[in-house]
Amino acid sequence: MEPTAPQEACFEAGVKFGSLYHQFAGTPISPDSADSLTAAMEEAIENQPFCEAVTVSVRMEALESAIAEGGADYTELTGRFIDVEMRIEYEGVTVETSMAMEDGYPLMQVDAVQE
Amino acid sequence: MEPTAPQEACFEAGVKFGSLYHQFAGTPISPDSADSLTAAMEEAIENQPFCEAVTVSVRMEALESAIAEGGADYTELTGRFIDVEMRIEYEGVTVETSMAMEDGYPLMQVDAVQE
Amino acid sequence: MEPTAPQEACFEAGVKFGSLYHQFAGTPISPDSADSLTAAMEEAIENQPFCEAVTVSVRMEALESAIAEGGADYTELTGRFIDVEMRIEYEGVTVETSMAMEDGYPLMQVDAVQE
Amino acid sequence: MEPTAPQEACFEAGVKFGSLYHQFAGTPISPDSADSLTAAMEEAIENQPFCEAVTVSVRMEALESAIAEGGADYTELTGRFIDVEMRIEYEGVTVETSMAMEDGYPLMQVDAVQE
Repeated sequence: MEPTAPQEACFEAGVKFGSLYHQFAGTPISPDSADSLTAAMEEAIENQPFCEAVTVSVRMEALESAIAEGGADYTELTGRFIDVEMRIEYEGVTVETSMAMEDGYPLMQVDAVQE
Repeated sequence: MEPTAPQEACFEAGVKFGSLYHQFAGTPISPDSADSLTAAMEEAIENQPFCEAVTVSVRMEALESAIAEGGADYTELTGRFIDVEMRIEYEGVTVETSMAMEDGYPLMQVDAVQE
Repeated sequence: MEPTAPQEACFEAGVKFGSLYHQFAGTPISPDSADSLTAAMEEAIENQPFCEAVTVSVRMEALESAIAEGGADYTELTGRFIDVEMRIEYEGVTVETSMAMEDGYPLMQVDAVQE
Repeated sequence: MEPTAPQEACFEAGVKFGSLYHQFAGTPISPDSADSLTAAMEEAIENQPFCEAVTVSVRMEALESAIAEGGADYTELTGRFIDVEMRIEYEGVTVETSMAMEDGYPLMQVDAVQE
């Protein structure tokens, strides 16, 4: 069957999450450079179609503790250092989505779909 | 409202597309290395949850023509060199999706949703 | 033969260039989001060892013209939209490097080595 | 001062290492998909100028142990799962380089320079 508008809206939301994650995973990050990276992530993904708002926040304690364990003063970005919220607007449908850690993996999920 | 299973299935499909695209965009590619890259893209993304099948094929004419225009014997992977098909299975829902060029942009879309 | 300090310094400079380019190539970029992206690129790569200064500037005319040709209001970052300068300090050796377009390809090069 | 050919050869070697690492870091990887990914990494980077040979091997024990610790049957590629060797030929200079883990960080280094 053909997809409905809410289903397509959810697909668009997923595309943005996959993009954000795999574009920026591996980027060198430190507490000092965290703000410029999250700002760039937000503005870059907001360029994509139907993407109304992106908020990326760094879990600073997890970042500092990972750096303390390593031998350098920075580490590489992975999902365990960030929380993400994103709002998609597609053909009158609003999709709210988020990413947070669950059982050691960054879980991306749809929080709400509003027609 | 809470998302339905088909909506979540479409979200998962989108995540895989965004991942595939932004993980591999920019990779050096030539006609000789095209097969190993598409094989790696397929197997890498099939690791992700709910992702049953990924097919990536190179638009060899577009690739060769881009290389002929440049001064090197390779170029960087972008959406205009590949077609992608993907099948997601999530809680009894099957989602068929594809990516192809449309008006000069790689368009990712949901082709069918089957409960 | 074992590498000399200036040779190792040049190797370090190359690592930073390859990192910067392949980490961020493919990122969605528009004139409005260009500043946040270049700031993030600079600060991210400056985290890496021996990397004293990174300057990334957007070739705004090339960016606007590429966007005008496409059907969307953004495009994906490639080397033709940016100029980069970088200074590496390694065991008393200073290496100045830069990236700019030459014959349609982003050419990365060592400008000067100072012991 | 202008760089010498051996210094430029080392710069080129560094570019390839940074490219390889930041292009592929974050790719979903499992024991079953490891071979296709390493083949793609080798062939992709060998496209780049002056890059004669690239060998990527997976540290399978480290990979399996990381997967066992997580909740999924794959993980994301980082430097701790691979060893890399690379040979650059530039204007009569041969540079041998490698990447291996040292103190928990992937250390990239120049092993030999031969004029």
